[in-house]
Order: sequence, then C-alpha cells, then structure tokens
Amino acid sequence: MDAISVIRTKRDGGRLTDAQIDWVVAAYTRGEVADEQMSALAMAVLLNGMDRAEIARWTAAMIASGERMDFSALPRPTADKHSTGGVGDKITLPLTPLLAACGAAVPQLSGRGLGHTGGTLDKLESIPGWRSEVTRAEMAAFLRDPGCVICAATEDLAPADRKLYRLRDVTGTVESIPLIASSIMSKKIAEGTGALVLDVKVGTGAFMKEFADARELAATMVSLGEDHGVRTSALITGMSTPLGRTAGNALEVREAVEVLAGGGPADVVELTLALAREALDLAGLTAADPAKALADGSAMDRWRRLVTAHGGDPDAPLPAARERHVLTAEATGVVTRVDAYAVGVAAWRLGAGRTRKEDPVQPGAGVELHARPGDRITAGSPLLTLHTDTPERFGYALQALDGGVTIAPDPAGFTPEPLILDRVG
Amino acid sequence: MDAISVIRTKRDGGRLTDAQIDWVVAAYTRGEVADEQMSALAMAVLLNGMDRAEIARWTAAMIASGERMDFSALPRPTADKHSTGGVGDKITLPLTPLLAACGAAVPQLSGRGLGHTGGTLDKLESIPGWRSEVTRAEMAAFLRDPGCVICAATEDLAPADRKLYRLRDVTGTVESIPLIASSIMSKKIAEGTGALVLDVKVGTGAFMKEFADARELAATMVSLGEDHGVRTSALITGMSTPLGRTAGNALEVREAVEVLAGGGPADVVELTLALAREALDLAGLTAADPAKALADGSAMDRWRRLVTAHGGDPDAPLPAARERHVLTAEATGVVTRVDAYAVGVAAWRLGAGRTRKEDPVQPGAGVELHARPGDRITAGSPLLTLHTDTPERFGYALQALDGGVTIAPDPAGFTPEPLILDRVG
Repeated sequence: MDAISVIRTKRDGGRLTDAQIDWVVAAYTRGEVADEQMSALAMAVLLNGMDRAEIARWTAAMIASGERMDFSALPRPTADKHSTGGVGDKITLPLTPLLAACGAAVPQLSGRGLGHTGGTLDKLESIPGWRSEVTRAEMAAFLRDPGCVICAATEDLAPADRKLYRLRDVTGTVESIPLIASSIMSKKIAEGTGALVLDVKVGTGAFMKEFADARELAATMVSLGEDHGVRTSALITGMSTPLGRTAGNALEVREAVEVLAGGGPADVVELTLALAREALDLAGLTAADPAKALADGSAMDRWRRLVTAHGGDPDAPLPAARERHVLTAEATGVVTRVDAYAVGVAAWRLGAGRTRKEDPVQPGAGVELHARPGDRITAGSPLLTLHTDTPERFGYALQALDGGVTIAPDPAGFTPEPLILDRVG
Repeated sequence: MDAISVIRTKRDGGRLTDAQIDWVVAAYTRGEVADEQMSALAMAVLLNGMDRAEIARWTAAMIASGERMDFSALPRPTADKHSTGGVGDKITLPLTPLLAACGAAVPQLSGRGLGHTGGTLDKLESIPGWRSEVTRAEMAAFLRDPGCVICAATEDLAPADRKLYRLRDVTGTVESIPLIASSIMSKKIAEGTGALVLDVKVGTGAFMKEFADARELAATMVSLGEDHGVRTSALITGMSTPLGRTAGNALEVREAVEVLAGGGPADVVELTLALAREALDLAGLTAADPAKALADGSAMDRWRRLVTAHGGDPDAPLPAARERHVLTAEATGVVTRVDAYAVGVAAWRLGAGRTRKEDPVQPGAGVELHARPGDRITAGSPLLTLHTDTPERFGYALQALDGGVTIAPDPAGFTPEPLILDRVG
C-alpha cells in the first residue's frame, strides 16, 4: 500500500477500498503519509466525491485513530447536539443544561471560533472564572452532577480528524460534504454520546448556501451516526438572518441566560425547544417536557451548577465592551432583511472573533440587533449597536454592514422565512 | 493574494489570473506557499485543467523563478532536443555531436533516470572518467569547442520547476498535460537554446499511452516555445517497441557509438536523422547534411572530443555486466511485438535503473534484443540477453518479460508500426 496509488485511485474517479482508507488514515495519523500527499487526496475527494460506503469507512478509520469514550455506565442516557455553525448561534448554552434538567447526560465537546462564526468555548470563557479545559475525571464527575459538561475535545479523540481539519483549512479543501460529514461525525461518535441531534444551517451566514447541499450533508451525517449505533436526527435551519438579537461572546451569554430565565428572543427559544425535543426523543426521554424545564427554573438551576462546576461565577457581571456605536434606521418601514454574514463579519471585525488560532478575542465585542425581519422601525431609531474595546475598528465593521439591512416602506404581505426548514432522520 | 484563494479559483473550475499565477509560483519558490498547498493546487489543475494562456503564464513564472541562460554571443546558432522519455532512447548521445558537426552549438541539459526509462546522464556516466557536473565556465567553453555539452541542470535554472517536479512525483499529480508541458518547457527555455525539437513518445513504454494526448502535449509545448522566442517543433514517435536493440546504460552507449560509426540499428539512425533535420532547419542550418556527417566520421570526431571534454576516455572499454542470461524463442515465426514497457521494467530490475533518487545504477546491466518486430526467428535461437552484476535478479526481470514478446507462426501481411507518427510545428 502506498500513498500515490491511493491518490491515483481517487484522482481517476475510482472507489477507495476499505483497505486503502484504513491504511491512508492510519498512516497519515502516524506521519507516514505526508501532508502534501493528504492534501492532494483531499482535493481529489473534493472534486471526485466519495460514495456512502467510502464515507462510512473513512469516518470509522478516523474514529479508530484514537480513543472512543464510553458513558454507558452512567445512570442517565447521553444526548448531545452539534451545529454546523452560524451567526449568533448560542443554542448550546441554554440547550445543554436544559437537556440535563430533562434527564439526559450531555458530553458536549465544543470548539473555538475562527472566521465570522463564533465558538461556544469563546462565549463561555467570557464568564468570569470559566475554565474550558477539564480532565477526564472532571468530565465524568460533571456528567453525574450537574449532568452536563461543555469542554474542549482532548487530543486523543479522532486525532486523524484533528490533523486533517487543520490541513484542509489551509489547502482549500474544506468545502467537501464527505470530508465535512466524516469530520463532524468522527468527533461526535468518538465523544461517546448515545443520541445526537444535528443543526445543519443553510443561508448567507452558514457554511452551506444551498438547501440541497445542507440536506445532503444532513442525510450523510444521520446515516453515519446510525451506522455507529448513535441515534441521530437533523434539523435544517435557516441562517440568512442571525439567531436572536446578539452576535458576540458575552452578549450571547446574556441572551442565553434570558432564555434560561424563561424569556429571550422567540427564535432562540423555538430552536432550543425543537432541538431539545429531538434529542430527548432520541435518548428515549419521551416523557420529558423541555418547555416546562425552561419555565419552572430547573434548566436555569442546571446552568448555574454547570457554570460553577467549570469554575465560573454565575452571579458575576459579564464583561462589557468599553465603546459603543449606535446605527440608526435610515427609513421608516418594516425590516425585511438583516444579513447574517454581514453581521457575523462585523462582530468578528469588532473583536468577537479571531483571524489566527492563537489570537485572543474580546469578550465584550459584538453586534446587538434592535430589530429583526418583520419588525416595524422608525427612521432615526436604533437599528444596531456595535460593541468593541477598540473603537478604531468601528469603520471597518460598518463597511461589512453596508447594505446588510433592508427596510421596506410598505412590504405588502411580507413574512420572515421560517426558522426550521426540514427534518432528516 | 493568498494561497487558499488561488487554490479555490482552480478548484471551482475558474481561470487563474496572471497575477495569481505569478504570485503563487514565486511564493512557492520562496517557501511562503507550503508544499501541502501547492499539491492541492496541482491536483486541482490536473482535474480541472489550464487553458493555453494560463499554461503560458505558468511557464513564464517558472522561468522567471531563476536565471535564463543566454548564448546569443556564440558564433553558432544554438539547437537542442528533448524527449519525453522511452525505453532504449539513446538518441541524445549520437544526436548531440551530430548537430555540433553540422554547425550548431548544443547546450543539452539532461537528467538521471527514475523508474523504467533510463536517464541520459546515467548512460554517459558508464563511460570511464565521464563527469556530468560541469561549471558554467566549462559549459561555455565546451559550446565553443567541441560545440556541445551534455550536463546536469544547475540549481538556478527554473528552481520553481525543480521544487514542483519533486512534489508532483510523490503526490500523484504527474499526469497533467499543463504541468508536464510547463515543466519541460520552463527548463528548456531557461537553458537558452534558440531552436528546439521535441520527441514526444506514445505507447506502452512511454508516459503518454494515447496518440491524442501526445499530440496535445506536443502542440502545447510547441506553442510555449514559440511564445518565448524559441523556434520549436515536435515529432510524435512510437514507443510501444524499445528503440534499437539495447536498453541499459553501457549497452546503449555502445549502440550510440555504432550509429556514430555509420552503422547501428535502422530505427535509431532514422530517428537521429529526422530529429537532426528538424533541429538544423529550426536553427537556420538548412544546408547542413546530417547523413553525410554520420557517414564521413565528422559526427564521430565530435563525439570523441565531447567525451574528452567531459573527462572521459573515448577509447576505454565500456563496463560489462558480470552475468548474462539468454532467453530463447519458444516458437518459429515472425516477431510481431516486443513490449517496450516489459523490456524497460526488466532492464530496471536488472540494475540499469533506480528506485530512489539516491540509488546507484549498474553501468553494465540491461537487456539486449536479438530480434525486433518484423524479424524472423527460429525456435531455440536467442531472443533476448539479460545483463546484470546481481544474478539473483534474473527471475524478477524474467517475470517482467513474461508475455512481453509475441511470435506469430504465419502473420500474413504483418508490418511493424512506423516509428515517426506525426509532426507538430
């Protein structure tokens, strides 16, 4: 077996055999297949595709490159959620303690943000004292009490994926459904959850711009989960508008706490409950009532215990940016569009995101929306507030927002696009 | 400008702009674009192609990555030949002194062999004392007297190509006409020749298996030459049968000397004269008579001076392998096929070629053909002689030859395929 023959097979439009996939993934993890060989293979996969059986084997090989966690000894069923990423997507924050309050154990492994979408760990780290790196023993303890954990993945989970993910990022080989699906699912399957709901986003602020692509990615991931004994379903949700009214780390934590307190924006509540319902059903917790757990404070109680377990102080004030800039509406009418990508890039430029992995983020930076599609607004009233510690970035952020919001004086019959577009599973 | 955006352009089927090509080739040469990025780009080029204008710019960028030699001050016109490589292809050896004898100056930069086709420098280095590495000053002196030089390319000629060539070799991205054409032509244009004839081989022993591919490669290279002011033409020649009666280093030198002495196999003489005629016409030496220069000993005189200039002894006996094995004909009839690839692999396995760049070669090893297509043969008479210093390799070489020769008892109307299939230019 050698790398060149594997590359040639895929380059020439052939199917990779199980033996070729097992060998190339393992040899790449060991460093015997070089980065330049794997990137050529990744480009050939991107352009020539992989069929379902190849994707399944590739995923299995990535899982087999490391350890697979096992939480079957826990007294509760495990459940988790993964989102393909969007602007203002803070759903993991209310959903994780909500699922724990409803009887599930939630081993949520998350990442940091890169580019225009924020990362869950960056958001949580805006809570004073929060620590994302936990030991394996702490993880097991948190899954018993408070019943959930949100932490960084350890190096021994799907190391092949870790290595390949970094490579794809610099070689223009990210946008491949087989490689995206196997990357996400190898990590989620290795993390040891028994039930998994996927939030596959589509729209200007999402990775997938086309509904058909999102649906194909969702179907691929659902079947990968089922192949590995993880009960999996997916919701396909719109991401042409930011979720909720905030994009930015501490700003989003504040909004998540509002939801846990029984309030918060309607779309964030709707999606949190829909994903909770999916995950609880998959985990066999069909009698649980997530709406009640939000209303009666039991989810909030779990959140406070989760924050405390991670070393954070649930009562400490969240950091705020030093400077604000309010953008007002230029016309009176109905907001028909707030572009998710424009808002995501603006929040990133204000300091909420990073350009390189080693960059710090500003906990208080971001964008606050005072109106969403469907809202009436009067010329001169606040439309968006920009937050940053570095006001010299306001101009750069405003450029990103140019043309990002549409106000129509009299949009007869306008109704915003539904949030949940489809379900797979 | 960044590598990922260049990769994405080609990945998504777009045209690379001049600025993208100039930047990516220069940045790769400097080490700012990483190997894994260039290999992803090479795979995208292989699968999505480049148009003529892109190939021309890519070639120009590779030339511009180093020095371009200039021999315009020489009193004679410069001319050179490049072959895409075949089994038993020793044409450079008689052709170079022949062109010099006809009034051209020949700055022939050659390579070593890797795989089943031999390298010109390996062949010449079987001559006792021959030295392929010469200084720039020696090169200039040899071009004045004896009027030719056959040496290794220096590091400062098209360094981008040197780096990319090694990368393509290990990443399954060799078989791309745009990349092959730009690689060959960047080196040949940088070497400073004013006229260039290309020998584009097609057949089982060649890189190109299909006539249409060979023709496309030839046409691409001819237009690249013309774009850069090098008068260029190409012959497309058959390589399903080895050239001449030998494949192996010293064996081929012996055959080349036979041609220079006015003898030698008819096909080697035919191709040497055809390529000489092309090169001399391109160089403006239309009155020269290469057949006469072979017949009257003037080409042989140049050969002896060339060998002497390179430190070799033209009168020293050539090395011979320690062991021989004769393969006899199994039937009586007419030889209808001697497969070039089978013979090339056998010669390589006997020690004439190398597996890794750093391996040595056996000067005496190789295969001698006692019959070629069209020859009558009697069962039990010698068909092939295998030569090696390491007789334990005979079995391995015989495996390669299994089924490689066809003898037909009564092949009505059989005539061997013509050697020269087409001309482009």
